[in-house]
Amino acid sequence: MLAVILSGGSGSRLWPVSREAMPKPFMKVGGDRSLLQRTALRAKAVGAGSCLVVTNAEYVFKTMEEFAALDSAARIDCQMLLEPVGRNTAPAIAAACVLLMDQGKADEPALVMPADHLIQDELRFAEVVAHAGRLASAGRIVLFGIRPTMPETGFGYIECAAIPVGLEEQTVSRFVEKPSLDRATEYVAAGSYLWNSGIFCFTARTMLDALQRHEPEVLDAARAAVQRGSVPALEPRRLQLDLSAFKQAPNISIDYAVMERESNVVVLAGDFGWSDIGSWKAVAEEFERDAGGNTTSGDVLLADCENVHAQSDDRLIAAVGLKDVVIVDTPDAVLVCDRNESQKVKDVVNELKRRGHDTQKLHRTVARPWG
Amino acid sequence: MLAVILSGGSGSRLWPVSREAMPKPFMKVGGDRSLLQRTALRAKAVGAGSCLVVTNAEYVFKTMEEFAALDSAARIDCQMLLEPVGRNTAPAIAAACVLLMDQGKADEPALVMPADHLIQDELRFAEVVAHAGRLASAGRIVLFGIRPTMPETGFGYIECAAIPVGLEEQTVSRFVEKPSLDRATEYVAAGSYLWNSGIFCFTARTMLDALQRHEPEVLDAARAAVQRGSVPALEPRRLQLDLSAFKQAPNISIDYAVMERESNVVVLAGDFGWSDIGSWKAVAEEFERDAGGNTTSGDVLLADCENVHAQSDDRLIAAVGLKDVVIVDTPDAVLVCDRNESQKVKDVVNELKRRGHDTQKLHRTVARPWG
Repeated sequence: MLAVILSGGSGSRLWPVSREAMPKPFMKVGGDRSLLQRTALRAKAVGAGSCLVVTNAEYVFKTMEEFAALDSAARIDCQMLLEPVGRNTAPAIAAACVLLMDQGKADEPALVMPADHLIQDELRFAEVVAHAGRLASAGRIVLFGIRPTMPETGFGYIECAAIPVGLEEQTVSRFVEKPSLDRATEYVAAGSYLWNSGIFCFTARTMLDALQRHEPEVLDAARAAVQRGSVPALEPRRLQLDLSAFKQAPNISIDYAVMERESNVVVLAGDFGWSDIGSWKAVAEEFERDAGGNTTSGDVLLADCENVHAQSDDRLIAAVGLKDVVIVDTPDAVLVCDRNESQKVKDVVNELKRRGHDTQKLHRTVARPWG
Repeated sequence: MLAVILSGGSGSRLWPVSREAMPKPFMKVGGDRSLLQRTALRAKAVGAGSCLVVTNAEYVFKTMEEFAALDSAARIDCQMLLEPVGRNTAPAIAAACVLLMDQGKADEPALVMPADHLIQDELRFAEVVAHAGRLASAGRIVLFGIRPTMPETGFGYIECAAIPVGLEEQTVSRFVEKPSLDRATEYVAAGSYLWNSGIFCFTARTMLDALQRHEPEVLDAARAAVQRGSVPALEPRRLQLDLSAFKQAPNISIDYAVMERESNVVVLAGDFGWSDIGSWKAVAEEFERDAGGNTTSGDVLLADCENVHAQSDDRLIAAVGLKDVVIVDTPDAVLVCDRNESQKVKDVVNELKRRGHDTQKLHRTVARPWG
């Protein structure tokens, strides 16, 4: 088994912590290790001997630090494939598969994981992935479908002939990308839809063959970007994709490029406690609760609070008489949000951008006295 | 008319803004001027030719700055009486009256005002104070009673034979200091109680005579503290009370020392929009509201909020989906509080002290990056 970790985008749903300067994979969520580190450990736990991290060139040093910070027993051999520009998941996966093919790993099953998800039941995950590996070796493209718990509009949905149970695989009837709330509500009620987790398993050969048939432009650009890519003299494990070649790749997702068009796709039940940590509410769920259902990190004092999540970076948060509120304090901004409206944080970030706020850089403010 | 401004204590009800390093009189509340400056302007508006500020020696320069910052038209002649140690209102008022007596102002009515209150209707205030001045000149001690709007437990209550209407004065049946909630609820229902505003009018002669009869120890200590006090060579308008003498004064309030025991006391209706700004809820009421009833100052973005007060010193506050919440951001602490529980902030500060937090000094934190 090989692991391909997609360590991408800044995302605005976890603002003010997640920004371009501090994207979500580097966040710690209810633990000492970042989401990226935990993804690397998960790769090792499912038996991957090495991992290939696909990330933006801008994050190369931060990513190396994250891997270096793992203690030796936990460390996993790591290659990096650096994107000079973001082009969505299809070109990223295509480039990774080209590289694996070049390295003689065309027929090993590759587990593709976003770097910013969490899995609660690692043992179950290993079982399901092992089965996925067998299917991938037999030429299948395997998806992991998650039974929806709410009409989430941020995910892709997979309609199945029947919802897979245990380790059985099911074929896919249809894909739906990010539906409206009404549609999502229908899908949840129907009982025949799963969320697309964005975790996949296939061999490089299978994927490159599928790309050749469905999106040859993506494949051509990825192949050229790898071939013309540069490897730093002292860093043989790091390949920087060629900008002019990679830029030619259409900006499309792997779902759109391949999954929706390919008959060779099967779905397994992702019954391993998956979360994409897509909101502060989801972050809060990863922390240990007190008797009032509150979760905190950093210097926090709660009085008469219920179901409050408060996390402080540096300063004191004091909260009084609140219910269902998320408080996130950073050096230059504080977010106070109804826990059940935390998906609106994205809109706030858009509004801040519109107003000309610099929402992305991390300001190291020197606090001013009053006056 | 003379004005005596009592510019005291740090108070913890408006933490994290109000602290020892930044007591409430220096706070700006919904305007450009501090509460102390507004009190000085009010003294001038009621016809006081000069004012005597009684304050802790620690705040001498900050106080001078506040007066100097008033533009020349608004400026009022100001003397300062500096307490080396806080001894509650009776010794402070006693010392002020001794000084006024020494300066030949024994028979001028003195308007005594805490420096951290607000008055909405300044014109009505001037009318009521003018009437109080006449009563004070005739030897009365005048209180200003406020019709209670809620069972506030932080105030003293005045029971009257009848609630005064217009400019009529009423005698006092009884004083009650800070009652229990049950008692306060009874008083509000009874309709014969007023809040004691802590604003008074009397002549120095009347007050010193009353102190001589009821609390001679207070008077003796105050007299000795003034007589042995020191005046800086270049600052003839500033008298520092003698520590060893002033320390001898019992720590008691003017209500307890004089008002409750003196038959010479009358109460006027303080129907001039008084607020002691005793909680963040009260602060919020001084700001201009938007359509959703929200009030803000500083860099604030509200989304789907109702009745929220958010004030930022330096950083961005983003609030989403909140109702009836107060958010106060300072360089080293952020308070998020249910608007109707803002009186509990005091308990939070006590709890922080118990935990060994330095709640009083203002930290000029240099923000740390993540990692």
